[in-house]
Amino acid sequence: MTVYQATASAPVNIACIKYWGKRDTKLILPTNSSLSVTLDQDHLRSTTTSRADPSFTHDRLWLNGKEEEIKEGGRLWTCIREMKRLRKEEVEDKSSSEPKLSTYNVHICSHNNFPTAAGLASSASGFAALVSSLSHLYSLPVSSSTLSLIARQGSGSACRSLFGGFVAWQMGSNPSGSDSLALQIAPQSHWPDIHALICIVSDDKKGTSSTSGMQRTVETSSLLHHRIKTVVPHRMETISKAIQEKDFDTFAKVTMADSNQFHAVALDTEPPIFYLNDVSRAIIALVVEYNRLGVEEGKGYRAAYTYDAGPNAVIYAKKENVKEILELVVEYFPQREGAFKDAFGLFGGGGKVVGKLPMGFNENVAKRFEVGAVKGLIHTRVGDGPRKLGDGEALLNDEGLPKSLA
Amino acid sequence: MTVYQATASAPVNIACIKYWGKRDTKLILPTNSSLSVTLDQDHLRSTTTSRADPSFTHDRLWLNGKEEEIKEGGRLWTCIREMKRLRKEEVEDKSSSEPKLSTYNVHICSHNNFPTAAGLASSASGFAALVSSLSHLYSLPVSSSTLSLIARQGSGSACRSLFGGFVAWQMGSNPSGSDSLALQIAPQSHWPDIHALICIVSDDKKGTSSTSGMQRTVETSSLLHHRIKTVVPHRMETISKAIQEKDFDTFAKVTMADSNQFHAVALDTEPPIFYLNDVSRAIIALVVEYNRLGVEEGKGYRAAYTYDAGPNAVIYAKKENVKEILELVVEYFPQREGAFKDAFGLFGGGGKVVGKLPMGFNENVAKRFEVGAVKGLIHTRVGDGPRKLGDGEALLNDEGLPKSLA
Repeated sequence: MTVYQATASAPVNIACIKYWGKRDTKLILPTNSSLSVTLDQDHLRSTTTSRADPSFTHDRLWLNGKEEEIKEGGRLWTCIREMKRLRKEEVEDKSSSEPKLSTYNVHICSHNNFPTAAGLASSASGFAALVSSLSHLYSLPVSSSTLSLIARQGSGSACRSLFGGFVAWQMGSNPSGSDSLALQIAPQSHWPDIHALICIVSDDKKGTSSTSGMQRTVETSSLLHHRIKTVVPHRMETISKAIQEKDFDTFAKVTMADSNQFHAVALDTEPPIFYLNDVSRAIIALVVEYNRLGVEEGKGYRAAYTYDAGPNAVIYAKKENVKEILELVVEYFPQREGAFKDAFGLFGGGGKVVGKLPMGFNENVAKRFEVGAVKGLIHTRVGDGPRKLGDGEALLNDEGLPKSLA
Repeated sequence: MTVYQATASAPVNIACIKYWGKRDTKLILPTNSSLSVTLDQDHLRSTTTSRADPSFTHDRLWLNGKEEEIKEGGRLWTCIREMKRLRKEEVEDKSSSEPKLSTYNVHICSHNNFPTAAGLASSASGFAALVSSLSHLYSLPVSSSTLSLIARQGSGSACRSLFGGFVAWQMGSNPSGSDSLALQIAPQSHWPDIHALICIVSDDKKGTSSTSGMQRTVETSSLLHHRIKTVVPHRMETISKAIQEKDFDTFAKVTMADSNQFHAVALDTEPPIFYLNDVSRAIIALVVEYNRLGVEEGKGYRAAYTYDAGPNAVIYAKKENVKEILELVVEYFPQREGAFKDAFGLFGGGGKVVGKLPMGFNENVAKRFEVGAVKGLIHTRVGDGPRKLGDGEALLNDEGLPKSLA
């Protein structure tokens, strides 16, 4: 008996031009275009195995070892239904010899290699891996942009995780959502030098979810409309050009300005939404001072912070500057021994980072925090798009149940 | 020999619609109109004595016991020069029998009854007291709005401290600044029920000065222009009407929205400006939850936070709700024994406030802080405009030197 099964992994992406606000909450159509950098799956990824079998009694999904309900009309349900529809329309309706997989129920098992507690958005990589694994299961002859239309309906920013490198989510204008999809601005190989340092920040309080937060901003912020109409279109052009030209200075300026503006419109919401805390603010102050030094030395901006809907910082920088930035961050935010995984061998084998200030750095721009204020540091870089994995990496066992539960 | 001397006090004001940005930095002409509540001088005030004497060799000024330099072309210098000009034009040129005080040098001594370290803007009350005392010294037959034109050139928001009650600073349009002045929207007696609770918040870091910060916002914020052109004119109308109608619910909504938006445009600045810290954020969360309860109970909004260029909160509320709000704040921000001055006798003689949550309050909206996170609480209310004081309260001695230095 043939086993119909496929496994894929998909990356995390972190936006430089932020997505904040939907014009259609059901189809997940955004109020503005956005642009992100795809991060390397070697460090952060979601892996998903999908299997279709006539013996399965209903669609089932396990996430990180726990079964999730697939609610009718919900986001998971929509993505699975849309993938089955594509299977039928693009494969089965065109060749009657193809097995009718679209009529079988599926078992799906997904796993993130990073802790949910880290506060990294796992819905983007998760829905991208789901859609990728199903597209392989169903042998769909469609483009990544077409798949992005479906991932978008799972979680808006998931559409950008269908590509590696530098990715735009164009908002589109069609009410059906048919042109609200992801496009690759440049592949990873165009500018592999772009690295990222993720600073995982402790937070006392549970923040507002981005789903409810962004709609409150749409309903109550007087400034959001101006951002959507005037600011973002211009920034999309500027940063796309900066990426094409590998102009880090401009890339950094636009990235930081857009992070600031996203948090500004969150603050302009009623009641106001705050995602940045005192630790986030201190990291911003370090990057600002580091860039001031860079300008003074004629090197321009050398680091770009960006914050999503939480206090964690992602600092983009060129590879050559990451070591110095890491030492700077550790000077203010001491790390527990052995906590840092030195993925690029910047600090020899041990990975022990000793705090150090760059020459001429004004140390008074922030106070020094205690161990634990920044809970962890992850060094990664721009990466590729979803990967098809071999059966050896499948997450389902012979019975089509999660291996982790066996 | 006649002594030409006058003493006046002037109040602090806290804006509901914020002033942030100058269109003319020399004349201090704002990019938008603003509106404030004048606070009671019984609790917070600047007192200033001015004396004119032919024996004085030059203009001198002492602030809180320390002599300040009066730099040519500076703000103090401009205010003193303008007041002398008014003396000449409005008094001496019209009646030759009047003494030529405008030709004498002046000694000015000023004192704030609140510590500078409290982080309350003392420049508003200070320049209003300066201008008031000189107007009495010079027996000027001019309106408070005319005096506000001069106070404005000392410190923009000082113009609003020339009136009691509820005060608008209309931005005007004349390049000379002749129509950029303060007007009273309603006197203290119209709505004496408006009280204010000032929460003095500790801050680790020295913030950006408002003078330099606001111009950086003017130069770099994409959102500020929209605020100036579209949002503020509408809010000025709405809040003025709310004050006329004593509609606290609307007053509160507009006040909080404008505080949020001011901090939003500060964040939208390059590099971003932050004035709110984690303690400020927690106070906002308390007020938001308190208002949610009020709405649930059919009472509407009962408290309005507002933040200037620093982490201190001012909470406006109707008198009847202040006790409950004080207990709520103390529940999360315990105070040192005896630190709170119970000016309105809400807690009996001792002034000891015991923390307490209103019924139904969701206590998880903020964590409880340690003693010192909020360094002090000041309970005050809407107050009157500058007061002429008697000679008994003069700050200069017989020789025209500060009594405090004698």
